[in-house]
Amino acid sequence: MASEVCKRPVRPVSLKPGMTVGELIREMEDTGFGAGRLARAVEIYERMIKDGALILLGFAGAMVPAGMKKIIVEMIRRKMVHIIVSTGANMVHDLLEAFGGAHYKGAGVADDRQLYKWQIDRIFDVFVPEEYFKGHFDNPMLSILDEIARETRESLSSADLMREIGSRISDENSIVRSAFEHKVPIFVPAIQDSCIGLLLWEAAAKYNRTPPTIDVVKELDQFFSAVKDAGKTGAIILGGGVPKNYIFQVAFEFKKPYNYVIQITMDRPEPGGLSGATLEEAVSWGKVGEEACKVQVISDTTICLPILVAAVMERIGES
Amino acid sequence: MASEVCKRPVRPVSLKPGMTVGELIREMEDTGFGAGRLARAVEIYERMIKDGALILLGFAGAMVPAGMKKIIVEMIRRKMVHIIVSTGANMVHDLLEAFGGAHYKGAGVADDRQLYKWQIDRIFDVFVPEEYFKGHFDNPMLSILDEIARETRESLSSADLMREIGSRISDENSIVRSAFEHKVPIFVPAIQDSCIGLLLWEAAAKYNRTPPTIDVVKELDQFFSAVKDAGKTGAIILGGGVPKNYIFQVAFEFKKPYNYVIQITMDRPEPGGLSGATLEEAVSWGKVGEEACKVQVISDTTICLPILVAAVMERIGES
Amino acid sequence: MASEVCKRPVRPVSLKPGMTVGELIREMEDTGFGAGRLARAVEIYERMIKDGALILLGFAGAMVPAGMKKIIVEMIRRKMVHIIVSTGANMVHDLLEAFGGAHYKGAGVADDRQLYKWQIDRIFDVFVPEEYFKGHFDNPMLSILDEIARETRESLSSADLMREIGSRISDENSIVRSAFEHKVPIFVPAIQDSCIGLLLWEAAAKYNRTPPTIDVVKELDQFFSAVKDAGKTGAIILGGGVPKNYIFQVAFEFKKPYNYVIQITMDRPEPGGLSGATLEEAVSWGKVGEEACKVQVISDTTICLPILVAAVMERIGES
Amino acid sequence: MASEVCKRPVRPVSLKPGMTVGELIREMEDTGFGAGRLARAVEIYERMIKDGALILLGFAGAMVPAGMKKIIVEMIRRKMVHIIVSTGANMVHDLLEAFGGAHYKGAGVADDRQLYKWQIDRIFDVFVPEEYFKGHFDNPMLSILDEIARETRESLSSADLMREIGSRISDENSIVRSAFEHKVPIFVPAIQDSCIGLLLWEAAAKYNRTPPTIDVVKELDQFFSAVKDAGKTGAIILGGGVPKNYIFQVAFEFKKPYNYVIQITMDRPEPGGLSGATLEEAVSWGKVGEEACKVQVISDTTICLPILVAAVMERIGES
Repeated sequence: MASEVCKRPVRPVSLKPGMTVGELIREMEDTGFGAGRLARAVEIYERMIKDGALILLGFAGAMVPAGMKKIIVEMIRRKMVHIIVSTGANMVHDLLEAFGGAHYKGAGVADDRQLYKWQIDRIFDVFVPEEYFKGHFDNPMLSILDEIARETRESLSSADLMREIGSRISDENSIVRSAFEHKVPIFVPAIQDSCIGLLLWEAAAKYNRTPPTIDVVKELDQFFSAVKDAGKTGAIILGGGVPKNYIFQVAFEFKKPYNYVIQITMDRPEPGGLSGATLEEAVSWGKVGEEACKVQVISDTTICLPILVAAVMERIGES
Repeated sequence: MASEVCKRPVRPVSLKPGMTVGELIREMEDTGFGAGRLARAVEIYERMIKDGALILLGFAGAMVPAGMKKIIVEMIRRKMVHIIVSTGANMVHDLLEAFGGAHYKGAGVADDRQLYKWQIDRIFDVFVPEEYFKGHFDNPMLSILDEIARETRESLSSADLMREIGSRISDENSIVRSAFEHKVPIFVPAIQDSCIGLLLWEAAAKYNRTPPTIDVVKELDQFFSAVKDAGKTGAIILGGGVPKNYIFQVAFEFKKPYNYVIQITMDRPEPGGLSGATLEEAVSWGKVGEEACKVQVISDTTICLPILVAAVMERIGES
Repeated sequence: MASEVCKRPVRPVSLKPGMTVGELIREMEDTGFGAGRLARAVEIYERMIKDGALILLGFAGAMVPAGMKKIIVEMIRRKMVHIIVSTGANMVHDLLEAFGGAHYKGAGVADDRQLYKWQIDRIFDVFVPEEYFKGHFDNPMLSILDEIARETRESLSSADLMREIGSRISDENSIVRSAFEHKVPIFVPAIQDSCIGLLLWEAAAKYNRTPPTIDVVKELDQFFSAVKDAGKTGAIILGGGVPKNYIFQVAFEFKKPYNYVIQITMDRPEPGGLSGATLEEAVSWGKVGEEACKVQVISDTTICLPILVAAVMERIGES
Repeated sequence: MASEVCKRPVRPVSLKPGMTVGELIREMEDTGFGAGRLARAVEIYERMIKDGALILLGFAGAMVPAGMKKIIVEMIRRKMVHIIVSTGANMVHDLLEAFGGAHYKGAGVADDRQLYKWQIDRIFDVFVPEEYFKGHFDNPMLSILDEIARETRESLSSADLMREIGSRISDENSIVRSAFEHKVPIFVPAIQDSCIGLLLWEAAAKYNRTPPTIDVVKELDQFFSAVKDAGKTGAIILGGGVPKNYIFQVAFEFKKPYNYVIQITMDRPEPGGLSGATLEEAVSWGKVGEEACKVQVISDTTICLPILVAAVMERIGES
């Protein structure tokens, strides 16, 4: 009996100069802790792709300001993701760059009073000049919202809105643009909790326009339609927050547990919130299947996401 | 110069049997780390009340299942909070109890497959039988939603909806009921990301009803109206997530930084998300004032919230 | 079966002004997350005292600079702790205060280059002038070490050394002094990793003295003798580090699992180190008993320790 | 002025299949959060090597059970590390494997009572049969300790002991063996807090032998001699604990701040302990230089260490 649980020895990681990311992950396969979990995430991601699962991506935390957007674009292009659920902020920062703005490398500890005087907004160690929110977001977005409002009669889901915006921008490194092109819907459940929401309000309240109307039940309906009849389903959750809960609640609603789940986060179970809840806990709710392939990697997302995707790209290319 | 930064000695905590929570906090005033920060939070909370500030509460994490609801009710009754921004889940669990359901003490590590078979849903170390979501939430809520839809023509903000629900329930220990009684609006920006949202969808899709329509821009408008003309403003943020961002974005929109801010959370700045961002970072954005009284307590919320509120109640009673 | 795991409802915390710490803990007894765990810790601590267990305290992290020393002194005086295992640093800071030095309230984020110029050393948000290490530690300690060396022929364990020092100081608020008075041994397994160690080296290398010789095997022998024949054993672990491992390894060595264990820490299991390992993991090693009363509170120690001890003092006084 | 802090734009990570680890790090150079920090760590490690710095490695956490030992061996062989300061546990597990034992992939959540019955010890998700501590550690080590005691008259520092053991084993994948071969001293300041310490005690107390005598002041003397006259100094700290403090205290003692510092850890500053203290804090103490190249990566060590070392190997090979 004891021998049953001790049959796969830890095989220490062996490095060589110039090894590929995929080779490094192979070396991590028989290790413990985070390394073993990350290697398992690569394996699960590969399997969910090869199994033809519908793949949902939960996208929280300031991933775009940190420089992660092209990875998501790559995932979209390579059909490694089919539905995105995002915080509003990530979409705002993607659009800000699409409209010519930028983020800058700053410092994790800074003189925030000085930054305030300079009107530079800090996101941990990334800086963004506040004027960009005006010139590279509000102004171009207002025109786009006007155009959308003119052309569409009906109320829109957040995914409709993101698609409409995506069709009107040209930056090929933009998540919003790429998602439009590849018909990957982007759901932003708390859209009013972002500069997009602020602008919808301003359009009417400050600029006397008639912005598009957002319909949250239509959003649920579209999201559910996209997921409920899928065969196998897989979820890749970066961070936690609303995207994690939203991706899981469809499984709860339709009693259709995910077959594959990867979460990369620094959140932990002990505070009791859903963001850091274990994937085992989600089994009790029927959100994750009893026999699902699942792994939670407790580590920095900006480090693990590039490795995960690079390694899977290498493997998929191989096959 | 050096003597300037070394003038307030750490005074070790001295305990005595039967001391009050307020006396314990007094002992923590001249200490370091979390203890000093919690004592500072008590001081700031007292000041924001005495200063007549408009007080907003950000309410994330599964605080109601953990047993924190009566503290919020107490804060509402004593006018220690004026506006609540909550996750949907906390309101769902508050209503579930108001409709006769309950949560149970479970275990932090459990056999989730067995729980799944028993249809018991786990929230860290709290258990809730899944049938309660039907009998003690969906059924009574459907009738209430019907009634609201009949009686109101216009679309509703999430705060309108919570108020309408609150007016139709009677449990005096319910946050939703108490908030209705004391005219404390509850904003739930990601309402579709909760069982309330699921039910709004089900009402139409499964039960052929016409549920109330939710208007997210109206929500922003009401929220902004409630905050923008206030004199001093204070924020008490439990956890992070959408409530933190939503409470901060009104300050950003109206260039009206908070004068008082307390955050109790286990989230940290290094992953880069807003939940764990320092309050100094918020200064760069103009969300928190340069001269604001602010403190971030990195500790378990279910431990710190009761102490914070009990100590402030003791002090306010004193004065 | 399902009803078996759902029989103890969460009872929400009810506050009243002027409630005692013990009353607050009673309110937390039927809650979840950290609050429920802290209430459980109080219950376990009370039981280990009433059961006459030998109580070991693991003492890591900069608890003395933060202002926690008088709590430990109180625990010693009230016979709530019988053996202490500490980092060197906590003992150094206790002695520094005993010799007339002090710590000061500083700030969690500071200009460390400026502090360096001013020769002020920072410990998170506590400051200590570097000269104190000379005037209020090195100088008086050198004389004491000389005296000890003269009077004792044999090599000393770290506990012998701490006892000898304790007998030569008079500050009644000192942990080292109180431990001497009440015959509570203090083991400092990594004594060379502290200013005490530095001074032992300096005594010989810089000042041409013959300092006492430290014997690490004698230390183990004394520690083992003190623990191995005890009836019931209990451990209270603040933080993690060497003290946690050292306290647990005696149980491993003698196949004598602890009957009661409380750990308060911010460390977590996922990085794989012992500091944050769950107490369940310790069961596999036989360090903690299968039927032990145990709880791990993941929360700030400087907040939880005062509450824990104040509540137990209130209860013990009651009985 | 504002433009000064916003001159280096974040450049999003661009992936391609089959990219090397070094290429991935190049892509992370102009990103934020953990990714940017890890890229900076690679740059700093490369610089400390090229600058001819004396490189110290702090080695805490159960890195060997997790499968990290061959990375350390590689660092030793390539002269990428010159002095090691380790917890006892890592050396114990290295020796256990050198003597024919093994660790196994287990699970992060397990039935620890069952494991206890099977006598399998759990280290997060790594399992080790308890009998290995007897057959693959105690027995061979006892003979070695006997031999060492016979051949050496004087008391030994922990580094002397590790070197003597290293000279008597042959496993080329062992850290202890490789360190001996390449004359890299391994200091284990809390050696009594490990199975090595237990065995030293057992040798005398149970087996009637005369084990080698450990001298902690001699250890400090050797450590200080090895560091104090070095030109530039660099520290790579994995985890925290005693190794971090021990490596930093030599800088404090000799007023010789490190020129290069990398720390990879999941510990954080808020609990106030040294393990998670920022490297800025260490500047106030003069442990890290005001102008030092330093970075703290808050992320899983078992993921970041392989990447760091692989990337540096790739670069050094290039040059």
